[in-house]
Amino acid sequence: MNHPAHTEQAMQACIEACSHCHQVCLQTAMNHCLETGGKHVEVYHFRLMMNCAEICQTSANFQLSSSHFHRRVCEVCAEVCEACVADCEKIGGMDECVQACRDCAESCRQMSSTQH
Amino acid sequence: MNHPAHTEQAMQACIEACSHCHQVCLQTAMNHCLETGGKHVEVYHFRLMMNCAEICQTSANFQLSSSHFHRRVCEVCAEVCEACVADCEKIGGMDECVQACRDCAESCRQMSSTQH
Amino acid sequence: MNHPAHTEQAMQACIEACSHCHQVCLQTAMNHCLETGGKHVEVYHFRLMMNCAEICQTSANFQLSSSHFHRRVCEVCAEVCEACVADCEKIGGMDECVQACRDCAESCRQMSSTQH
Amino acid sequence: MNHPAHTEQAMQACIEACSHCHQVCLQTAMNHCLETGGKHVEVYHFRLMMNCAEICQTSANFQLSSSHFHRRVCEVCAEVCEACVADCEKIGGMDECVQACRDCAESCRQMSSTQH
Repeated sequence: MNHPAHTEQAMQACIEACSHCHQVCLQTAMNHCLETGGKHVEVYHFRLMMNCAEICQTSANFQLSSSHFHRRVCEVCAEVCEACVADCEKIGGMDECVQACRDCAESCRQMSSTQH
Repeated sequence: MNHPAHTEQAMQACIEACSHCHQVCLQTAMNHCLETGGKHVEVYHFRLMMNCAEICQTSANFQLSSSHFHRRVCEVCAEVCEACVADCEKIGGMDECVQACRDCAESCRQMSSTQH
Repeated sequence: MNHPAHTEQAMQACIEACSHCHQVCLQTAMNHCLETGGKHVEVYHFRLMMNCAEICQTSANFQLSSSHFHRRVCEVCAEVCEACVADCEKIGGMDECVQACRDCAESCRQMSSTQH
Repeated sequence: MNHPAHTEQAMQACIEACSHCHQVCLQTAMNHCLETGGKHVEVYHFRLMMNCAEICQTSANFQLSSSHFHRRVCEVCAEVCEACVADCEKIGGMDECVQACRDCAESCRQMSSTQH
């Protein structure tokens, strides 16, 4: 790999943020949301949680494989994470998920704006 | 690849069954179940739908990559599909999902019992 | 779901194109490319094949779950597929993969440009 | 969730082991193996690396969603990881991958033998 060292570090940090966000969203949706019911299983919210989990996984995998397209996936990942932050804050009681999505969105925004 | 032709055909049929079951389970869970609510978003049922979608995807991918372990994944896939058949029949109104899971379970059972 | 019928049909066709492209890329990479070696396992080509397989899977899954972000994922999927078409044509002997990627790119381009 | 606390801790540790092993296998295959070539891109080895990455992801996801079938997936995951340990040791120069697969196999073996 011929990236400068600081880029490798930034990518590793973004991989960790994506992986953590994937875990928190999936675990929260499939346990807290399903068990709590009500607003937590409304169509828009639950879909967003699952979509966020999936795009974070894909974003991590594109970076792990040093894909030329990782910035493009990070960009979409940031958008989904930001929507998930907004919806989780509206529903409330999902602080860990809000934090994980916010951190991931920020890290993916930085990654997607990095020069080639 | 040194499999006899009939094995290749059987594997391709199993890949199709797994891929179809993945699609039907995911689409049904994220649309019909979330929109209908009630029993359709109860913890056991919804988890099973999502787990079934995921193991079908993994089973298809192991066969697509000619993994030495595809029979082991097919075996677990068949078990999850069979549990999904039973639960979807109990809830009712999920005929397409029942059929897709039943076909996939049958195909995966055959695949998992094939001699090396 | 409140999409008009023709949109549902277009989405189902795009799901099929993505699913087929995922299968062809993964199966080709893990069998034909690994067994042939040489140019087929060069870093840029092999990564692209695997990245194409993965983004097609994610694109199909976002559409299957009626995600608000499916157009954004389709847009990235089209870009990766187009790069894969170009590289597979350069290497040669990968006609099925070229066709699957071209069909998927076209379908995803249409999907990503659809009005909300 | 009505698991006793020590089970939750064990599962969280296994999720981390699976997630780490997924990352190491995928990153090593798509960078070190593809860039080094030779034995590292031989069919059996490369497939095993990719299969190991995928089953670790699925195993983590089944545990994150508290699936009734997580022990069955952990069991298959342990088998794939053990095969990957053996092959990586034979090829050499893959110490990080050996360690990640060994840790994941051990954690998954414990999880799969846990009583319901």
